Amino acid sequence: MSFRAKSRNPDEVVFKLAAGSLDFARDDEQYMSLLVVGSIALDTVKTPVEEHADLLGGSASYAALGASFFTPVNLVGVVGDDFPESEFEFWKSHRIDTTGVQRVNGKTFRWSGEYAWDLNTRETRSVALNVFETFSPELPANYRATPFVLLANIAPKLQSHVLDQMERPRFIVADTMDLWIETTRADLDALLRRVDLLILNDSEAREMTKETSLIRAGRKIRECGPRYVAIKKGEHGALLFGEDEFFSAGAYPLEDIHDPTGAGDTFAGGFAGYLAAHVRENVTFDVMRKAVIYGSVLASFCVEAFSLERLRKLTQDEIADRYQMFKMMSQFEVLA
Amino acid sequence: MSFRAKSRNPDEVVFKLAAGSLDFARDDEQYMSLLVVGSIALDTVKTPVEEHADLLGGSASYAALGASFFTPVNLVGVVGDDFPESEFEFWKSHRIDTTGVQRVNGKTFRWSGEYAWDLNTRETRSVALNVFETFSPELPANYRATPFVLLANIAPKLQSHVLDQMERPRFIVADTMDLWIETTRADLDALLRRVDLLILNDSEAREMTKETSLIRAGRKIRECGPRYVAIKKGEHGALLFGEDEFFSAGAYPLEDIHDPTGAGDTFAGGFAGYLAAHVRENVTFDVMRKAVIYGSVLASFCVEAFSLERLRKLTQDEIADRYQMFKMMSQFEVLA
Repeated sequence: MSFRAKSRNPDEVVFKLAAGSLDFARDDEQYMSLLVVGSIALDTVKTPVEEHADLLGGSASYAALGASFFTPVNLVGVVGDDFPESEFEFWKSHRIDTTGVQRVNGKTFRWSGEYAWDLNTRETRSVALNVFETFSPELPANYRATPFVLLANIAPKLQSHVLDQMERPRFIVADTMDLWIETTRADLDALLRRVDLLILNDSEAREMTKETSLIRAGRKIRECGPRYVAIKKGEHGALLFGEDEFFSAGAYPLEDIHDPTGAGDTFAGGFAGYLAAHVRENVTFDVMRKAVIYGSVLASFCVEAFSLERLRKLTQDEIADRYQMFKMMSQFEVLA
Repeated sequence: MSFRAKSRNPDEVVFKLAAGSLDFARDDEQYMSLLVVGSIALDTVKTPVEEHADLLGGSASYAALGASFFTPVNLVGVVGDDFPESEFEFWKSHRIDTTGVQRVNGKTFRWSGEYAWDLNTRETRSVALNVFETFSPELPANYRATPFVLLANIAPKLQSHVLDQMERPRFIVADTMDLWIETTRADLDALLRRVDLLILNDSEAREMTKETSLIRAGRKIRECGPRYVAIKKGEHGALLFGEDEFFSAGAYPLEDIHDPTGAGDTFAGGFAGYLAAHVRENVTFDVMRKAVIYGSVLASFCVEAFSLERLRKLTQDEIADRYQMFKMMSQFEVLA
């Protein structure tokens, strides 16, 4: 059956996509699966051009789908009884295990935000925690030995609670945000001593360290615990700090951004998913360089449409093509 | 005689530096010299930590010295009778021809500025144009056939006046600033139709095009005339735009910046100097990628000390080492 014929049936296309994802890492001897915990939300997003309601959102939704292009995901989160069953079907078709997603009575976490004209700043219009208010992540038995962990953006206390239930994970990535730096700093500091890599954006790195130089900020955060730090700079790319190593990546040059929501979460998911799929013996700085690029590739697709719409139909070929574009736009020697 | 012994005599060190510069491009069949026109000034600079008066400054001073590490320079400018003769000796020792520097009665152009605590914003405290007020650049006969031209930052009318006197240059690079975008836009637009590459910083690119996206801004400036556009982003590196090509370079990760003055001019000089020295047949996008990196290397040294002090004692080995660092920090494949 030709691809054209298949593409007429949405379910079959999804199946083919998932199969493609498996192909992508076929040369790996075993899958190093990734546990992802974070928020699952229904978002209402307004940009200067469009507004859409009840979109799938939340840090875990973006991170899990981003990671799923590279590795199987064990998802942890909570949804209410208003949450569409079709999303569970979609996750399953993408190698995302949903055993750890609690479905409880009540409404799903809801967030509503509005972006300014330049899409660089946004205002939260409303937040309704709903079932998220009493959420305590509990890991199913088959999740506890997951070798790689991504603590997507939620309260540091919940992130630590997940780590408490893990059996000696190989590598732990944590994402955070200004809210936790400002309101639960002690919890965040406690978490930092337990993670291998912290992801945060440039303004958050400055706020956390009181340093104007991102280079100093990155080094200073490493002294708080994480061996590695990734600083996201939006349109300016990302920086990665190791002990004696440093990597600077540009951002993909997009002219039309439709919805920046979830770009950071998708970066984190793509980064951690790539790492989980490609680390053999030890986690090296060189594999993390590529993980930063793949995270940036995924994030660049994310913002091309509202919610997860672009990522839902993304193909491995598109990821591979954009990775090549990143290579072309950032290399100045040995151009292949 | 050992290097240590030599370094006790400043003049000998300077001579050795100049000889080193020649070595650097020895594999080129011929030198493609660069004409540099711009301001030559005596600066007073205040940072939150230090203040220094009567330092050599001006766009042409930084640009010419930056370029001189790669190629011989024909300098065009004006100084007053208070300008130190020793600077002429220094220029000569760096392959900078000063036949085109007019020495007239009166005081040299003076600028005084103060940087904010984060060194990212500065305020001009005073400007005294002095001999610069009536400056009209006149090219000596032996300058007119210089193949490469860098119009460092001065009024677009003066930049155009220099082009009027040139005999079919191969490649013309122009630098500009917000002042000319705001006050002499028509002159700038006329100039843009005559140059091959425009250099400006990110805020200037946005101001010029009214676009918030630097990607759109870069493309839009290309439509005004220049086939290539380089956008400097300070701590975030630089972007280079061609017809169907795009290059994104990170900035060198400096922790201690002493004086940002002249970084942009030095970038322009390093860029144009590298280009002049390394273009054989045609100016390709690939050689421009490297020119962006070498420009960034030179600029990263510039800010390590006040005025041109760091550049005065810079060696070819240091440039080569930092170029390798750039390679290490930006490549994610084929790491050599």
